[in-house]
Amino acid sequence: MDAEIVTSGTELLLGETVDTNSTYIARALRDVGVNLYLKTSVGDNVARMALVLRQALDRCDVVITTGGLGPTVDDVTREAVSRATGRSLLLYPECLAAMEAIFARWGRKIGQNNRKQAYLPQGSIPIMNPVGTAPGFIVETERGTLIALPGVPHEMERLMQDTVLPYLRDRLGAEAVVIKARVLRTVGVGESLIDEWIDTLMHSANPTVGLSAHSGAVDIRITARAATEQDAEQMISDMEAAVRARIDEACVFGTGTDNLEDVTARLLAEVGVALALVESATGGEVARLLRGTPEGAAILTGALHVDGPAGLTSLLGVSAAQLQAFGWVSPMAAAAAAANLIDTYEGGWGLAALGVGSTADVFGDDAGETYVALATPDTTEVVYYPFGGSGAVARRWVTLRILDLLRRHALAQVRKTASKKEKTHE
Amino acid sequence: MDAEIVTSGTELLLGETVDTNSTYIARALRDVGVNLYLKTSVGDNVARMALVLRQALDRCDVVITTGGLGPTVDDVTREAVSRATGRSLLLYPECLAAMEAIFARWGRKIGQNNRKQAYLPQGSIPIMNPVGTAPGFIVETERGTLIALPGVPHEMERLMQDTVLPYLRDRLGAEAVVIKARVLRTVGVGESLIDEWIDTLMHSANPTVGLSAHSGAVDIRITARAATEQDAEQMISDMEAAVRARIDEACVFGTGTDNLEDVTARLLAEVGVALALVESATGGEVARLLRGTPEGAAILTGALHVDGPAGLTSLLGVSAAQLQAFGWVSPMAAAAAAANLIDTYEGGWGLAALGVGSTADVFGDDAGETYVALATPDTTEVVYYPFGGSGAVARRWVTLRILDLLRRHALAQVRKTASKKEKTHE
Repeated sequence: MDAEIVTSGTELLLGETVDTNSTYIARALRDVGVNLYLKTSVGDNVARMALVLRQALDRCDVVITTGGLGPTVDDVTREAVSRATGRSLLLYPECLAAMEAIFARWGRKIGQNNRKQAYLPQGSIPIMNPVGTAPGFIVETERGTLIALPGVPHEMERLMQDTVLPYLRDRLGAEAVVIKARVLRTVGVGESLIDEWIDTLMHSANPTVGLSAHSGAVDIRITARAATEQDAEQMISDMEAAVRARIDEACVFGTGTDNLEDVTARLLAEVGVALALVESATGGEVARLLRGTPEGAAILTGALHVDGPAGLTSLLGVSAAQLQAFGWVSPMAAAAAAANLIDTYEGGWGLAALGVGSTADVFGDDAGETYVALATPDTTEVVYYPFGGSGAVARRWVTLRILDLLRRHALAQVRKTASKKEKTHE
Repeated sequence: MDAEIVTSGTELLLGETVDTNSTYIARALRDVGVNLYLKTSVGDNVARMALVLRQALDRCDVVITTGGLGPTVDDVTREAVSRATGRSLLLYPECLAAMEAIFARWGRKIGQNNRKQAYLPQGSIPIMNPVGTAPGFIVETERGTLIALPGVPHEMERLMQDTVLPYLRDRLGAEAVVIKARVLRTVGVGESLIDEWIDTLMHSANPTVGLSAHSGAVDIRITARAATEQDAEQMISDMEAAVRARIDEACVFGTGTDNLEDVTARLLAEVGVALALVESATGGEVARLLRGTPEGAAILTGALHVDGPAGLTSLLGVSAAQLQAFGWVSPMAAAAAAANLIDTYEGGWGLAALGVGSTADVFGDDAGETYVALATPDTTEVVYYPFGGSGAVARRWVTLRILDLLRRHALAQVRKTASKKEKTHE
């Protein structure tokens, strides 16, 4: 079953409202196994909406509209559906009675414009609305089915759950499929590199494998369509194994809605290490994110924010002469600051992130640079990034890379401890 | 100039991502005076996207796409534009050079899949991307102009501002118009009543007048199109006067992004009155909203939350026998609680909001009821609402009505004081 969504409202075309209704409906359709073919937003114009509905009915089995069922002159969905399907609008007494009951409770008589809401295309199945005045409706025509829902989000959601989804499940019958998706979240590698690794898998029709890039992180989304939930899960697991076999698995930090700071904090807590950090590159963002996790208080012993060399000298005792010689944004400065953090906070790990750059540019000649040093009692590792500065993008990228650096070190530590334990048991 | 937006991405059709890009572009187009005709979202499928682009070019002058310019196999926009316009993809050396420079800074060689991003439809004007690898492009054909932008929001926004908007303004030339909008925010009256009042104005073509209903509040949006900003503002002001003359003006609490709690708090502060309140109906929501305003600390002397009659008796000394006789959700209980608040907090205004109801239903027989009493040193006013309970919608509606009750009383007080002052001066 193929579907299209048509959202109506001039405010959508003026950019005044973000269309979250179609996102909700898209997810609901996916969950019952209906293919969404297109989404269209159209203004409050009868002729234009009728045209869009006619085209949608030509392409698809089911068209779902939201909005335009209110009482005002710019509520044009009933009229547009009437024109697109060639069915005249008739008074539905049960809808009028329901509205009159609501108005009676409010001590008011129903007006002419509200009465309009009880006129539905001939042959409609009305969808009674327990949370608003506007009834929705379903029109089954030889060319396809049209389902009209109100635009107020909580009304639309209620009618979807109570009536539309059961109706669609019933229609799908034996054809009903389950669509399941799993997301692998990666950090530290670009979209193009992942694409190179799994190019052949991305041509698979079922499950499908897709990539979506966020700032500094890439999601791999595996979506399977099957007769049962169990089958879909199995197909996803098989594909996940194939994906993991082809990529650098260390870049996968989680699945689903995992976020990097939570995963990192959990691993640091598992290692039982206390972390102190000094940030210039990221304006305290790494500390803020870690502090916001459940383990935050347990893993962070100190968090400093410096804006220049003076802070490193006064707070951490890094030698001013050396900073002068090497530059305060340098591998030397980062390594010295990280090591001194361990002394200052008496043990644990020390991390220093020092960066400069144009605020706007992360790719050009002004992109700047960032040095991150992570000192543990055993080693100090310094990492270089060819961007920096206080721009939102650079800051986000560096922040994710730092969390990832911590995550990878903690993970290595957890694994080392686990393998030692195993050896002891042998 | 008519435009359409086509956003591409299977994640949009799976309901995983809310499409904020098209909202941004819609607003930008409105500001330079381009009419947005339709918005469409399509999956990562070459044939389908080519079809949508062809239809859009048939209807409009300019089609703007976002997404699908990345390096992976599911980035299909370049190929779809090529098919829709009949222009083959050619290597643009300047785009390749820009990408190579970025990769060089990262110490990497450019891969085959990234090279793909430098192939644009023949005759394109490339849009260099200073904040990402994917260049955008503009194709001018005899059937219309197609503008392709990346889907990462900050990249899309940068390219819109730097290149696309100047390009469109230039194209519009003498045709350029300004579109301005003003929103009147109302509370306490339904959409259908406002529609009755201003029905004739809502047929106006320029300025247009539209309504959008939120939970418990309705916005009246006036949008004017004119040659200059000044003309547009004048047209809006004239229409605003016509609207205000036809409606109950007391229901307009503000304009633009004003919100009711801020307006109410400002007026209460102007009156210089201290408010104490007890809520059962709204779970402390009124106090929370007022406390969040700049004047919050100054105007709120006490805020109680009770779940039943015991709280009214123990905290406010309302007689248990009376509560028993009249019911604790009753005009009597509300009035007594409001009056006792003034005693308890020694002066100012007291407000009590007591309600019950099914959590789910705001229209049916279980909708419940709410009594709100506002006591001032002069009078006590009790208002009844035919809904209540802890459901999100009922709570939102009652909260707005309470804020509005406070706003109207404060406004009356401010006006009384002002007219007294005038009389004194006479």
